[in-house]
Amino acid sequence: VEPISIRLFPTPREVTDEELRGSSVVVIDVLRSSATIAAALTSGAREIIPVQSPAEAAELAAKAGRGLSLLCGEREGRKINGFDLGNSPSEYTPDSVAGRILIFSSTNGTGAILRTRTADRVYVGGFNNFGAVARRLAEDGNSVVIVCSGQDEQFSLEDFVCGGKFVNSLKSRLRRETIMNDAAQAASLLHAQFDGGILKLLQTCTHGSYLAALGFGDDLVQCAELDVTDVVPTWAEGKVKGFTVDGSPYGESAANAN
Amino acid sequence: VEPISIRLFPTPREVTDEELRGSSVVVIDVLRSSATIAAALTSGAREIIPVQSPAEAAELAAKAGRGLSLLCGEREGRKINGFDLGNSPSEYTPDSVAGRILIFSSTNGTGAILRTRTADRVYVGGFNNFGAVARRLAEDGNSVVIVCSGQDEQFSLEDFVCGGKFVNSLKSRLRRETIMNDAAQAASLLHAQFDGGILKLLQTCTHGSYLAALGFGDDLVQCAELDVTDVVPTWAEGKVKGFTVDGSPYGESAANAN
Repeated sequence: VEPISIRLFPTPREVTDEELRGSSVVVIDVLRSSATIAAALTSGAREIIPVQSPAEAAELAAKAGRGLSLLCGEREGRKINGFDLGNSPSEYTPDSVAGRILIFSSTNGTGAILRTRTADRVYVGGFNNFGAVARRLAEDGNSVVIVCSGQDEQFSLEDFVCGGKFVNSLKSRLRRETIMNDAAQAASLLHAQFDGGILKLLQTCTHGSYLAALGFGDDLVQCAELDVTDVVPTWAEGKVKGFTVDGSPYGESAANAN
Repeated sequence: VEPISIRLFPTPREVTDEELRGSSVVVIDVLRSSATIAAALTSGAREIIPVQSPAEAAELAAKAGRGLSLLCGEREGRKINGFDLGNSPSEYTPDSVAGRILIFSSTNGTGAILRTRTADRVYVGGFNNFGAVARRLAEDGNSVVIVCSGQDEQFSLEDFVCGGKFVNSLKSRLRRETIMNDAAQAASLLHAQFDGGILKLLQTCTHGSYLAALGFGDDLVQCAELDVTDVVPTWAEGKVKGFTVDGSPYGESAANAN
């Protein structure tokens, strides 16, 4: 049996197309796109279309019709002018998003998702849906690429530690020898320092402190919650849709259970 | 008293000119430019001129005169065709380099040095001259920027851990409150996992395994040696020259002591 590789990239720019090919990818943006996307799909959003720029988002929404679609996202942490929703997971309730198409543009997370085009499978994961995504990655049996969104193409602690949690979970789930790149090794070791203290991690990291100062302290609490949903947000053909771990569309009943 | 900032960048591309201004910088390329540069200056090399490309290096050497200057460096770990010396610190003996101008091009280290042009002061540090460079950084009293050379613009474990060792040393040397960026926090924590096991670290990281496979296993042993020289390689006006911690030119007696 060949060993399986687990490679982690602290910033999206470090990933090469070569390394994505044939891999299963998890894109991590702990603060806050991972949590927002998981919340939206758990609440019954039909699909999420990640787009790079607010202008592109507005154009797409005009085409889709503003009744069916919602404009969502942030710049510098705040809701974009003229958009319907920002990037707080608490905004993404069934009342606001069920059945809707969400056109989503965030500073770091959407760019990271769009960077992974050449991968075999792409999921969006964070602490909220950690267990479901980890199980899905292990069941794919592909080599695994963990893409941390980072902050403006710089290293971010919260994504790196969450990435380390994925590495450690995969190492115990995969019944094969694993080969890690340097960043996966580092994140794996670092995660051991933080496990159990996720909220404290989010409150001390640079972007968490920034969000708290903006008045988004409650978002940190929500983003730190472990395994509150088992949705597996899956990006394919330009859209992120919700699936269960076994690959069924994430259904009405699950949406209501949230 | 204002707090002093310690910022670490796992890859050179993450550093912005803005962040360099007014700072004292240490550039780290543990495998192997940091060790090679420290060895060369300890052995009495007059100066080292880091250049990006082998072609540029050859052109500069032709101008300087091949008697006085030596062409030094590597690509993919191996000595560049037609060059005098590769990137093994053991090659840089007083016999081969004393009094010479070294024109130096390595895959990652030289690019990282050249990236730091806008900084106030720039040093090259690794495990071999760790204590001297750490003391120099602390005595400058500037904000500190730690630039890890990485590997082909990707994260490398050995540079990150060495960077964490600089962070931890500075935290105890500086008698002021420190503010760290996320990567400095992560490296600081990670370093605690590795301290005392530097050689093992170099033997398990990706680039160390690669170098060992090429037959450079002895280089790993040399690059892992802590504080074997107190030279402070200092980059200014395009040249890296050796100084003592108190700022005197690194002299003949020190060269002979090696």
